[in-house]
Amino acid sequence: MTIKKLVEQIEAKKSFLCVGLDVDLEKIPTHLLEEEDPMFAFNKAIIDSTHHLAVAYKPNTAFYEAYGLQGWRSLERTIEYLNERHPDIFTIADAKRGDIGNTSTRYAKAFFEDLQFDSVTVAPYMGKDSVEPFLAFENKITILLALTSNAGAFDFQTRSLEDQELYKQVLQTSLNWENAHNLMYVVGATKAEYLADIRAIVPDHFLLVPGVGAQGGDLEAVCRYGLNKQVGLLINSSRGIIYASQGRDFAEAAAASALSLRTQMQQILDAR
Amino acid sequence: MTIKKLVEQIEAKKSFLCVGLDVDLEKIPTHLLEEEDPMFAFNKAIIDSTHHLAVAYKPNTAFYEAYGLQGWRSLERTIEYLNERHPDIFTIADAKRGDIGNTSTRYAKAFFEDLQFDSVTVAPYMGKDSVEPFLAFENKITILLALTSNAGAFDFQTRSLEDQELYKQVLQTSLNWENAHNLMYVVGATKAEYLADIRAIVPDHFLLVPGVGAQGGDLEAVCRYGLNKQVGLLINSSRGIIYASQGRDFAEAAAASALSLRTQMQQILDAR
Repeated sequence: MTIKKLVEQIEAKKSFLCVGLDVDLEKIPTHLLEEEDPMFAFNKAIIDSTHHLAVAYKPNTAFYEAYGLQGWRSLERTIEYLNERHPDIFTIADAKRGDIGNTSTRYAKAFFEDLQFDSVTVAPYMGKDSVEPFLAFENKITILLALTSNAGAFDFQTRSLEDQELYKQVLQTSLNWENAHNLMYVVGATKAEYLADIRAIVPDHFLLVPGVGAQGGDLEAVCRYGLNKQVGLLINSSRGIIYASQGRDFAEAAAASALSLRTQMQQILDAR
Repeated sequence: MTIKKLVEQIEAKKSFLCVGLDVDLEKIPTHLLEEEDPMFAFNKAIIDSTHHLAVAYKPNTAFYEAYGLQGWRSLERTIEYLNERHPDIFTIADAKRGDIGNTSTRYAKAFFEDLQFDSVTVAPYMGKDSVEPFLAFENKITILLALTSNAGAFDFQTRSLEDQELYKQVLQTSLNWENAHNLMYVVGATKAEYLADIRAIVPDHFLLVPGVGAQGGDLEAVCRYGLNKQVGLLINSSRGIIYASQGRDFAEAAAASALSLRTQMQQILDAR
């Protein structure tokens, strides 16, 4: 998918909501465990009830790998369902991959070609030749970890190099990589105050912002610093939406939670 | 597996060779493509012909993920075969994972519990709380990327923080993480000259050294700086061994290539 199409979706739906499909069999409604493929059944119900409110879905691959072959099959069925039913929706494989060149190409093929995801998250530690193999796929997006939302982000990402912090160096350096127009960046929502600095370095790229809960406490601050002329934000919520209820009304509850975030987004977009 | 058992294996076999099982269906002998599971058939033959020369096997997960469900099944069968036939051999899932806490726990369970690997490679960019969930598994080893062997290693890893280079900071900081005794480190063989500095920070941990080819050009230099009192090195060779021949004699050729490296290792160990 092109960024242009993503922006059209955002404007049409008045939403830049990404729903994280981090499916945990211990958390989904128990009646689904009787289904032949409970993870897919859960995702299908969540997608059916929220697709008009979201512009992106983001399965975290760890949750699927944890269930071995069965999990991979559920992931495959989920992305196939999304691509068949909702080809306009942006899909993110939250896999945080990254390896030397020919190996990164394997990962890129796995997610971009075999599974047909629109994008994949990638870790920057191994540098240029570990990321460019992903960037080489046209109309596919590589979402680079820049500043993550966990406590460990302060271990290395915010440490100063000679002239600036590591995460800023990651942003700046990556702009010089081949096909840098295929980049987005992961930026943790718990650090809205960093967004002004980040926008100074990457004014035009999309930012994928995890960590905004169902309450949407940080949404305004994130938007104040993060919005750009083509919106330029995807705000992810996982547990706040998909586990809004663990009963038989889980899909309706997910839709209500998604609607609440979408309504806030709509107000912010309309106020531009 | 415990480090103690690994060291016993190294001393018994006079080898610290790790064989990288990076299986590419375009590179394996064509007659294997007629098998029901060509990737497993290839791995089984390589393992059968080299297990007396190697102390570790390292499948890179990218090569298996690239073939979807079929690839995951081949990976499962490979690790099951290793654990059944050669329980004394150390197994490494070269997956370069890393995510926030509860997600890292998923990856750890996938590789340590479901697949029963002895170890997994992990990227440090997200810091302490992204790595400690792996370290929490006792008698399982987490192999942290420190200094990789690709050109991109110079993008960030060797950049100076306030007082020292990032990769040294990764080494030093990780020593303070809970269960740091469960750590090993990836250190690229192309940078043997860095090993003295690395050993000054982590004198006791094992280092996994990729990038030593079948020719073993760097082996002596790596050992000069990298050996410690319990050997403390695993030297990986992938393509140099597994694609030593692409004909029907591939398993014998792999054994010959492994033997050549093992013989050099034996000489180095005997000369201690």
